[in-house]
This record gives sequence, structure tokens and C-alpha cells, in this order.
Amino acid sequence: MADPARVPREALEAFLARVFMALRVPETDARNVAYLMAEADALGHDTHGVFRLRQYVNRLRDGGCNPVARISVVSETSATALIDGDNGLGHLAMRHACGLAMEKAQVAGIGWVGIRGGNHAGPAALYVRPQAEAKMIGLCAAVGSANHVAPFGGTDILLGTNPIAIGAPSGGPDPFVLDMATTVAAMGKIKTLAQRGEKMPEGWMVGRDGKPLTDPAKRDDGFLLPIGGAKGYGLSLAIGLLAGVLNGAAFGSNVVDFTKDTQSATNTGQFVAAIDIGALVGVAAFESACRTVFAELRASAPLPGHDPVRIPGEGRGGYLADAAEHGVKIHAALRKELDAIAGEIGVAAL
Amino acid sequence: MADPARVPREALEAFLARVFMALRVPETDARNVAYLMAEADALGHDTHGVFRLRQYVNRLRDGGCNPVARISVVSETSATALIDGDNGLGHLAMRHACGLAMEKAQVAGIGWVGIRGGNHAGPAALYVRPQAEAKMIGLCAAVGSANHVAPFGGTDILLGTNPIAIGAPSGGPDPFVLDMATTVAAMGKIKTLAQRGEKMPEGWMVGRDGKPLTDPAKRDDGFLLPIGGAKGYGLSLAIGLLAGVLNGAAFGSNVVDFTKDTQSATNTGQFVAAIDIGALVGVAAFESACRTVFAELRASAPLPGHDPVRIPGEGRGGYLADAAEHGVKIHAALRKELDAIAGEIGVAAL
Repeated sequence: MADPARVPREALEAFLARVFMALRVPETDARNVAYLMAEADALGHDTHGVFRLRQYVNRLRDGGCNPVARISVVSETSATALIDGDNGLGHLAMRHACGLAMEKAQVAGIGWVGIRGGNHAGPAALYVRPQAEAKMIGLCAAVGSANHVAPFGGTDILLGTNPIAIGAPSGGPDPFVLDMATTVAAMGKIKTLAQRGEKMPEGWMVGRDGKPLTDPAKRDDGFLLPIGGAKGYGLSLAIGLLAGVLNGAAFGSNVVDFTKDTQSATNTGQFVAAIDIGALVGVAAFESACRTVFAELRASAPLPGHDPVRIPGEGRGGYLADAAEHGVKIHAALRKELDAIAGEIGVAAL
Repeated sequence: MADPARVPREALEAFLARVFMALRVPETDARNVAYLMAEADALGHDTHGVFRLRQYVNRLRDGGCNPVARISVVSETSATALIDGDNGLGHLAMRHACGLAMEKAQVAGIGWVGIRGGNHAGPAALYVRPQAEAKMIGLCAAVGSANHVAPFGGTDILLGTNPIAIGAPSGGPDPFVLDMATTVAAMGKIKTLAQRGEKMPEGWMVGRDGKPLTDPAKRDDGFLLPIGGAKGYGLSLAIGLLAGVLNGAAFGSNVVDFTKDTQSATNTGQFVAAIDIGALVGVAAFESACRTVFAELRASAPLPGHDPVRIPGEGRGGYLADAAEHGVKIHAALRKELDAIAGEIGVAAL
């Protein structure tokens, strides 16, 4: 497969904003979502960035997502808020929640903001990096935008990949950013493989008969496996309670598959939190201890056949800089899809 | 192996308190720790309850743990606190943190309390059940009390099992309580198997050569495997930051193995949080949604060869009631150890 082509980031953002505006999204919202989608790709989260435009376009076009959403605060305390995303593009509510959580953390030491009426918002990492850059701890989790997982030992598909992300300053060039699905593989990765015509390894999915499933095109015949069996199941369930049930958002059989159903509101649930490090150990001590521990981890002798030990988030700043200098990588199959979208809705292609 | 014998819970608690008081722990503290240890066993967390008495006794006796600890607040905001456990029995700081987090949640919507100067405190589940019983969400995590895990792809043992627990009301008889190590197996389970002379399954541990390790007596020749490979490693690392580094507690090579070293302060780090459900969706709506989702999960057709799907925490109330009626199960090997302890420190045996 050829190297993905490069697209200047500005051109990519302008294209994405053009698409959203053509679908009635106000300019500021369109530009904010375009920025976050391009940021996701520039950071290397290419399964959760521009690749998702097709899904967003279909939902905006078919009435499943509200282009002119107005975010509102449902309830609020000094350290918490519940906000309603008004079924707009998910990035908007998450961006708002992230800012509000940080404001509250500055006042109360911690801010915790739940979302109902949200939608798919790209990689959770986007909503914990700002905290890390502001020398805070960021936490974020979401009910997945479709169910792909059965409860441990069961066969009914009632759970999502329910990702969780944690960000923190590291005392080094890149913040610590962990962004993980609670399944062995994220459905986004599987869809990317399907688009590229590649197979998935055993252990990612099983069929309803319990046998391994490796063809990503047959993903609807089985379900994703949670990490650590019962543990990953429990973690996914706990995230469903925190990001979904606690906010009055969907969880369980009322989760709408946002790809297959382009007409229904999803009532997606998420939360974003920020912790002021100054309220606990203090930033200088935190960063100093991180530098020590991360250096120890990196210095660990690798297992035979393994690369040196890495810290989650390490190298992402390099990806960003590379994308700024040489452009954002856009795979040929994705470029074709972007061109098709431009044609369908009548905007200038990328 | 014969069924474990039963011991009346009152007698068990009285024995434990007697041991601690003989080791200079003030009566109220001794009774509080005894209660929590017996509660752990009564709830079925037998690897993290009375079984740990030997470790606590050795550390109190040899100066590693402070019998007359005075918990202090290092810093505080409306929604957060950092407390210092003064190197006392870990249960005392955690119990205090749990109560303080709930008080703060009632005022600010969320309470987050970090601990430094703590010690091993039994199962994390103990510190999220009170929130669930008070119709709050409980969160808790800890830096493990010894390092048993290498970073993903590495061979240096720099991480603990770093457990996380989440509790919530369920709308049913048992609260939702997830308490999981971030490793495939907890070291407590492996030590219990070693005490009982049983083998562990493949996949729990590997040697430094990367080969499976199944003899629990040889646990020092290898390391525990994280759930989901790099994901469990990342999660363990994130918990280390939140429970350790954020509180100025130990994490990485400065973690003291609390079993092997009975003379040094461990500076164990933990956090306990509480979220007021009333500040978000409200308790009635939360419990109603839990009932619906949990019923759906339980109704899922099991995979061939699997038991029906379970909800974390389910059945623990039955264990408690059984222990109250018939006594707490104490395995013969553990009973022998308790008798030895009684003899050593000169208190009446159980």
C-alpha cells in the first residue's frame, strides 16, 4: 500500500468546515468541529478523526443530528454540571464540558461535567489534553456510539467499547495521554481495516458461537472481546453507569447505532473531568515525580522481540509537528470518500 | 480440601482488635480496622481480608507501620482534600477519606480525597460500598503495596497491580461494586493459592524470559501480566499517577514491598471519591435505568459452557447475611496462622 498522501492542515480544516456549513451548522461550530477532527488525525488518532466525516454527514443530512444545537446546563453545583448537547455534533458538547470542568477545577479543586444529548465526538484523548496542557489532570469517558460487545459470558450485544482517557502533565515534551477502549480492539480500527481490505488478528472478535472472527467485513456476525474478560466487562459497565446512566443518557439496548440509524437522536452520554494538581501535591512535585518514574519505565530492558517501553502519549507532539510541516496524512480510500461527500453535498473538494 | 470452618463474626472482630491493641493500636482504631477486615471476608474478598493480618502484624511489630497514627489534612478545597495517613494501618486513612469524600460530595456535588502516608487497606471495594449505600457513586484506586508488574514490553518490575473500584446503587438488593486489579490476577489470589499449595493457570504470570509461570511459590521469578497488554499497562500507570504521584505518595521504584520490608514506611497512595447522584440525573432516575440495564444483561443468553451473566457486586449481600448467620469462613491454613500470631504476641487465640 502506498504511503498516505499529505494534505495541508489548513486546507483540511477549511474543507471540513465547508461540509458542515453546507449542512446548516453555524460557522463557529463548524470551525470548532473541523479543528478537533483535524487535530485528531494530526495527533495520529486517524480512526477517530476525519475518517468519521461520512457518519457525521449522513446523520446531519438525515435528521439524526441537530446542526443548530444549543448546549444548555441542566443542573450545576460548584464542582459538577450536567449539560445537554441538544443532539448536536458531539465535539461541541465535549469541548464545552472540557472548558467548564477546567473552570470548576480552578475554583473547587475538581470539576466533573456529565453530558446527555451528545453524539460521537472523536477520540476521547482530545478532551483530556487541554487539562494536561493547563497542568491539570484530565479524565474522560463515553458510552460507545453503537453496541458491539456482549456481557462477559453472554451473547446479547448490549455494551459499547466505552473508552476512557486520562491526561496529565509529564514534566517532559509530551503530556501523558492514555486513551483506550475497554475492548481488545476499537471498532474504529476494525472499520479502518475493512475500508483498506485488511484482516484483523485473532482475539479481537468472536462470533456468537464463541469462535474467532478475523474478517472485518463480517463484524456484524460477532462481538468485540473486552480486555481481561470479566474485568473489561465490569469496567465497560462502570463507564456506562458514569458516562451514560448518571447523565440520563443512553446505555444498554437503548443505545442507537449511529452508523446504521442516521435519523434518530442517539442521546450519547459522556463525562469530562479536571483535577487541579495545585489542590493536591502541586504541579512542580507532580512533574518532577513523573520525570523520575517515566525515566525508570523507559530504561527497563525490553522483553525479547519488543521495542523499548513507551509512555502513553509519547511522540504525539512529534506527530502534530510533522502534520503541521508536511500536512495531515489522508489515506487514498479516505480521500475518495471525502471527494464523494463533496460531490454529494455540492461543496468544493479538498 | 475440606470446607473452611466458620467463625462467628463478633469473635473474629474481637480477636483482630485484640491483636492490634496488643501491638499498641488505640482501641477505636483497632476496632475500626478489625471491622473492615472481617467485613472484607464476610463479603467474600477473602484474599484481602483477615488473610493479611500476618503482614500487618509484622509491620506493626517491626516498626514499618505506625500504631498510633494521627491522620491530618495536608490541603483542602471545597471538593478535594489531600490527607496524610501518618503511616498508620491503611484502613484508617481510607475510612477517613471515604467519609470526607462523601461529606464534600454533599456540598460540592463531588468529593475527591487523595492519601499519602497510607498503607495496605484491604479490598478497594470497602471504600466504594458506603457511597453506594448512601446513593452516591464511589470511586477508589490505589498504588499496589508492592511492585509485581513490568511495563508493557519491558522486564523491570516497576508497577503494582494498582486496583480500581467503582460502586453505585443498583436499584436492586446489592449495590453495583466493581473491584479489579489491572492485572489478569491479583497477587493476593496468588498468595492464597501458594498458602493452599495450588497451581495458578497460564496467563496470570510470565518469567523474565517471557515464558508462562504457574507455580505460585515461584512468583518472585516473574511478573504479573496486565489485562489487555498495553491497555492494562496504561491503566495501571494512570492509576499510579492519580493515586500515587498526585498525592506525593510512592510510585515506581520507590514503592516498598510491604511484605518483604517490615521496617520502612511505605508512603502508600490511594484516592477515594464520591459523586452525588442528585447533582446529576437524580437517584430515582439512576436506579430505574440501572434496573432496566442490569435486567437486560442478566437476560442475555449465555455462551456455551458459561454461567448466566452476572453484575459486579451481585450476591455480596447474600455472602454478608450468610456470614452473619453461620459465621465467617476461615480456611484451615489461615486459622493456623492466626493461632501462631496469637501465640507470638501473647493474646487469646480466636
